[in-house]
Amino acid sequence: MKDSLNAISNPYLDRIDREFRNFAPFPTFAAMRDPISYFFTLPGKRVRPLITLITAEHFCHDYEGVVPAAVAIEVLHDFTLVHDDIMDDDHFRRGCETVHTKWDVGTAILSGDAMIALAYQKLLQARSPHLIKMLEAFTDGMYVVCEGQARDKEFETRDDVSLDDYLFMLFQKPARLFALAFELGYLFCSCNSDVLGALTKMGENIGLAFQVRDDLLDFVADQKAFGKDIGSDWRRRKKTYITIGYRQKSETNPRLPQDLFALKEFSAARDAVLEAGIVDEAQKFIEQQLHTAESIATSISFMHPVLHHLLKFLAKRSS
Amino acid sequence: MKDSLNAISNPYLDRIDREFRNFAPFPTFAAMRDPISYFFTLPGKRVRPLITLITAEHFCHDYEGVVPAAVAIEVLHDFTLVHDDIMDDDHFRRGCETVHTKWDVGTAILSGDAMIALAYQKLLQARSPHLIKMLEAFTDGMYVVCEGQARDKEFETRDDVSLDDYLFMLFQKPARLFALAFELGYLFCSCNSDVLGALTKMGENIGLAFQVRDDLLDFVADQKAFGKDIGSDWRRRKKTYITIGYRQKSETNPRLPQDLFALKEFSAARDAVLEAGIVDEAQKFIEQQLHTAESIATSISFMHPVLHHLLKFLAKRSS
Repeated sequence: MKDSLNAISNPYLDRIDREFRNFAPFPTFAAMRDPISYFFTLPGKRVRPLITLITAEHFCHDYEGVVPAAVAIEVLHDFTLVHDDIMDDDHFRRGCETVHTKWDVGTAILSGDAMIALAYQKLLQARSPHLIKMLEAFTDGMYVVCEGQARDKEFETRDDVSLDDYLFMLFQKPARLFALAFELGYLFCSCNSDVLGALTKMGENIGLAFQVRDDLLDFVADQKAFGKDIGSDWRRRKKTYITIGYRQKSETNPRLPQDLFALKEFSAARDAVLEAGIVDEAQKFIEQQLHTAESIATSISFMHPVLHHLLKFLAKRSS
Repeated sequence: MKDSLNAISNPYLDRIDREFRNFAPFPTFAAMRDPISYFFTLPGKRVRPLITLITAEHFCHDYEGVVPAAVAIEVLHDFTLVHDDIMDDDHFRRGCETVHTKWDVGTAILSGDAMIALAYQKLLQARSPHLIKMLEAFTDGMYVVCEGQARDKEFETRDDVSLDDYLFMLFQKPARLFALAFELGYLFCSCNSDVLGALTKMGENIGLAFQVRDDLLDFVADQKAFGKDIGSDWRRRKKTYITIGYRQKSETNPRLPQDLFALKEFSAARDAVLEAGIVDEAQKFIEQQLHTAESIATSISFMHPVLHHLLKFLAKRSS
């Protein structure tokens, strides 16, 4: 991430890393300290705290004060990953074992729970006159993300999930966290609701682009760069932008295999998906979302070199 | 609870019930709404929110404003129960099926997570100039309770848990929530740290008494009044005040069966426990804790009729 996002973002990412290394207060009891500290040191992209930092830097020239809030959103994100990994029974995350795999389900539930408390502790350290507003946004965001995950889980039992259903779920899950990252950075500085609304929209566009890029990479990524197993969505019959889009295409195109999940090999599924043109459509969707985000940024004069690079990076990231 | 605690507490419990019935904002998405609404309507004792209400009523004559905080502590407590039930694989709670039994583990994890967000949403509705302090106490409490549960889980793998180890865990788990119930009620009104410290201590005493009474009832309760299976701690070889205390007694008394958990029938275990005198000692411990709480209440002139009745009730409750 550091390399791909260009040297321009390194000072910000280093600042976040430093806060994670000196996380305080931090659990001392081994059964809590070890799994949380393990998860905190996995190589994450840290895009969300980066967004919070540059937003506060842009809108009130104070990025030092907002650092705890930036860390809070990353920890909130981490909690969702630890609990989602249990529900999906995923064994690898960021190239390493998941918490419930390395320890057990109980430890993963508790570590995730404790991370929520750590996230709030961090957020409460942010020195802002609008701290209550930040806490309200954070709490609402946390609830919406849980509901999004419940919706995603429900998709597992349904065969009729449409792209619209899927996008609605994305608004609740990944998009809400990206929107919250902007909101926290802005609310740290100010409460003007016009700008806030624009930033929320921008975060949502970026969140949709981010997740759809994930969906796409699961089919066409370079295994080495990807860091996790390619084809895992297909193997788990997961509803994604690619698999739902493919189903809709195959219904009107008799030349395509009708059931993507019934194919024997992942390579055949990848070929079918490419032939259906859904990968290209997904990439077009990603670029549209990021273009909209860029237009919104321009409309509120939010010109920050890191934001500019970030939008370019998200369109093409390979991991 | 209403009957046992005497008509004096009914108006307070009714007020809390009303807030739960009109819980807002409340999830509308069925997969979240149903399990949470199910759990909220199980017959709980609601001792913790009662404590928050009467504390605010006593210290600033405002119980209406503190109601959201009282509900928040009950919801925080509910979250811990839903997640603990998964970890302990308990199938019944408050006489009804647990969430992961009635639905599934994923639903129970998510419902618990969402309850944390609902608890914070409620707390953020409390109209107090000291809201940040309340949020800090709430967040620290939530972390400590998680660590207490981790410690409790760790006990399962150890045979050398002493009564001191056990009491330390109780300070973190049940005692912290009772202390927090007083703290929230008081912080709603004021920040004077001397009184706050006294209330924390009182809450801890009550929390210890509460849990040890639970431990004792698991051996000697009247099954009908108890509402859950008697002997479940013994069947699960759980470390409790009774089982740890018994082990210590049996080490110096050769007439007692050495391994309580090796006995064939629960009735034999109950007889052994009674013969060892540990039930009487536990009851003495409970009464000491409640007596200390009463003395502290007197020392800070916290005379509230409900508190007085509550302390009497907790010494003798049968469910």
